[in-house]
Amino acid sequence: MAKLTSRAEDYSKWYNELVVKADLAENSGVRGSMVIKPYGYAIWEKMRDELDRRFKETGHQNAYFPLFVPKSLFEAEEKNAEGFAKECAVVTHYRLKTDPNNPGKLIVDPEAKLEEELIVRPTSEAIIWNTYKSWIQSYRDLPILINQWANVVRWEMRTRLFLRTAEFLWQEGHTAHATEKEALEESEKMLEVYADFAERFMAMPVIRGIKSPSERFAGAVETYCIEAMMQDGKALQAGTSHFLGQNFAKAFDVKFTTKEGKLEHAWATSWGVSTRLIGALIMAHSDDQGLVLPPTLAPIQVVIVPIFKGEEQLEQLRVVANELQQKLRAKGISVKFDDDDQNKPGWKFAEYELKGVPVRIALGARDLENGTVEVARRDNLTKESRPIEGIEDYIETLLATIQEAIYTNALDFKNENTTRVDTFEEFKNVLETKGGFISAHWDGSAEEEEQIKQLTKATIRCIPLDSALEPGVSLLSGKPSERRVIFAKAY
Amino acid sequence: MAKLTSRAEDYSKWYNELVVKADLAENSGVRGSMVIKPYGYAIWEKMRDELDRRFKETGHQNAYFPLFVPKSLFEAEEKNAEGFAKECAVVTHYRLKTDPNNPGKLIVDPEAKLEEELIVRPTSEAIIWNTYKSWIQSYRDLPILINQWANVVRWEMRTRLFLRTAEFLWQEGHTAHATEKEALEESEKMLEVYADFAERFMAMPVIRGIKSPSERFAGAVETYCIEAMMQDGKALQAGTSHFLGQNFAKAFDVKFTTKEGKLEHAWATSWGVSTRLIGALIMAHSDDQGLVLPPTLAPIQVVIVPIFKGEEQLEQLRVVANELQQKLRAKGISVKFDDDDQNKPGWKFAEYELKGVPVRIALGARDLENGTVEVARRDNLTKESRPIEGIEDYIETLLATIQEAIYTNALDFKNENTTRVDTFEEFKNVLETKGGFISAHWDGSAEEEEQIKQLTKATIRCIPLDSALEPGVSLLSGKPSERRVIFAKAY
Repeated sequence: MAKLTSRAEDYSKWYNELVVKADLAENSGVRGSMVIKPYGYAIWEKMRDELDRRFKETGHQNAYFPLFVPKSLFEAEEKNAEGFAKECAVVTHYRLKTDPNNPGKLIVDPEAKLEEELIVRPTSEAIIWNTYKSWIQSYRDLPILINQWANVVRWEMRTRLFLRTAEFLWQEGHTAHATEKEALEESEKMLEVYADFAERFMAMPVIRGIKSPSERFAGAVETYCIEAMMQDGKALQAGTSHFLGQNFAKAFDVKFTTKEGKLEHAWATSWGVSTRLIGALIMAHSDDQGLVLPPTLAPIQVVIVPIFKGEEQLEQLRVVANELQQKLRAKGISVKFDDDDQNKPGWKFAEYELKGVPVRIALGARDLENGTVEVARRDNLTKESRPIEGIEDYIETLLATIQEAIYTNALDFKNENTTRVDTFEEFKNVLETKGGFISAHWDGSAEEEEQIKQLTKATIRCIPLDSALEPGVSLLSGKPSERRVIFAKAY
Repeated sequence: MAKLTSRAEDYSKWYNELVVKADLAENSGVRGSMVIKPYGYAIWEKMRDELDRRFKETGHQNAYFPLFVPKSLFEAEEKNAEGFAKECAVVTHYRLKTDPNNPGKLIVDPEAKLEEELIVRPTSEAIIWNTYKSWIQSYRDLPILINQWANVVRWEMRTRLFLRTAEFLWQEGHTAHATEKEALEESEKMLEVYADFAERFMAMPVIRGIKSPSERFAGAVETYCIEAMMQDGKALQAGTSHFLGQNFAKAFDVKFTTKEGKLEHAWATSWGVSTRLIGALIMAHSDDQGLVLPPTLAPIQVVIVPIFKGEEQLEQLRVVANELQQKLRAKGISVKFDDDDQNKPGWKFAEYELKGVPVRIALGARDLENGTVEVARRDNLTKESRPIEGIEDYIETLLATIQEAIYTNALDFKNENTTRVDTFEEFKNVLETKGGFISAHWDGSAEEEEQIKQLTKATIRCIPLDSALEPGVSLLSGKPSERRVIFAKAY
């Protein structure tokens, strides 16, 4: 197996190679669309199941809305429509027919042109609020707390596996509320669900913040976000939660009777995370040997590799390994025993390192004599010999230790690569030499934000929710600023 | 709440009303596409989770392939393409722009026309086999056992909630094998997974069979199916499993090196079930009061309704109900305590009957004194007073009893409405007066099959796998026949 390009050599190339070599995904025959392979999809399933559990725990239910949005509905909320218009796949016909000039080939049947074009959903606010119109009459119908797991399409010109693809999988929550306060609380609550998931489940520290007006979701009043730092110092927006005000209720005429008998527009939120999280997961933790997966998301948490000569030795090891598997499974640990005799142990070691299996147990004839096993950690690539007696308890603790270590490692990296700067010279210097997140003052204007972006390619990732009031002067205009914001180059 | 139209009065209207009133689904603003509401989606989630478990248990993994299929790939397997060409939604453009004549409105940007049109997948054989081409080189790469959960689009002119919609949710398994025998075994194995799921989980008896050549999936060599009987005597195809031979391997040039070093085309299967199963579930069991759900698929298995006057009584009942809830949940039973004080118990009783909650426990002040509860079964609408002591064990057994009773009921109905006939006069007579499945001889020709369809609207649902060899003469042509097949009018 050819080695991966190292991160130091070419981070971008390292990422692309790793996604393919670790069997997570590959480009498809459809421009910009990917095939998510079983190993990658297994990670997505773990993310999805845990998020779904958290959504239900916070009172949400799943539903499913149409893939297609008629153009007239799509354009109803103007800002939202404008924001997505340039990336819309459009269905115009509903039938093919045999090519009269080339039997065996098909052409679009010109007689099957739709009266109204259908947009393949880039997001579902329009179709969902058009539906909510008939669901909401009274305050008693509120809140509506619905989530959808779906595919969406945004026609991107430059695509990258997981990070930016024309079609991707995601969930989108769409809620309706009787009051502004309740909708705002919902937006914040779901941001915290995402943040907690990212940190505890993906072992990926994030900054919770709000977007500057120019980075807001099209149609939102406020966009909350979580931003994570990748190992190249760039930021990745890992999830967003939007407070939509009454924009969609007004666009789709969704009114309800309040307790007091008045007629009011409903308040809305929407929030989503996508298969992009898999890209974030890879770039946050993995190394030159391959994937590093936190145990919570690893499809295989422990692999047992027998070191043997001949079928007889293998048979002895199999007995011990089977018993060990049972003990581990009883603790809810997923385990694979790789007794394939086509590949050598060394090849297997490299393979499971590439795949990011958190713990490897090697078991040889000498181990049997000594009552030991060799336990190797994927995250820090250390190994040690341990007594096999009680090893299942040790592994259980070790998996928690690894989860914590991966998180701490990422947190240290994020902290080391977050720099406070007070002048634009410093800003440029840090960005060029060190990269990472830059905490700096900004005058709050779209002009300064745009100027900095033009000059440095760095954007305002967010105004952190926990940022303290701290008077200062902004980088370029020198105008007064009340708090620091986070700048970075971003994916 | 207005009563449902009865089944006897208008079966079709009863179905449509029930789907909407029980909050399962509704028509959307997009022609032929439905909105699956939370209660309906919760049933789908239960189906999906159980099927997914069974697929994984039989060695399959999930993956995800693109929604769009370039036309050139779509048409590669000619029969498959021909079969679906008339129902294809086609994406021709990838951008909208502001209407110059009507700012605020959008039009399709004529400059953003795709070089090659994209078909919204009606099924994924083409895109998947185009992918398998690069995954399969050697016999060591086989078998590939993959399933996908996805949405698909088939442009239907006449649609009905769940039964026939332009977009629907489904799973599609796509496997590749080194030998014909193995692929055939896979097709049969997955049919049995579907049949067992239908019978044990949906409490819906099915006939396992193979389709006549004219009813085969486009591109298949053999189509296996399960057919269920609805309460109006019509058949519903509940799942299909296709043996595709080497058709797709040849169309996409997927060859592998055998152990002996020869180059051969791979053998394929595909198999799928969809949200149509929810329609089948409804029509198999429900009654004039509403849904009847087997406990295995009921989002709420037990509802506890307090009968109270005033907050003080409710508070006493709440203590008992909470304890009971805990005991039931500890047994893995899903339970809802409806202490809403806006609606009267009678209203709630009707509501949960409509929603098909298998068991209702009513709890009043007198029950507290007597140490009893009233237990009502949804399936047969009986009720009885039971001691509250140990009621959780009783309920657990009762749920299993109900599951069994619903199945037995449906099985009896199917058996009573399956008739053996030997002449075409009898055939027409049974079909008109009694309906149901008709077991009759057929000469094996497409001509006779078509003639019977034209004359009676009945089609050959399947040639049952368990049909005994039994010489006879066919209905119309009088030619010799080796075994009986099942005819019925179908959804």
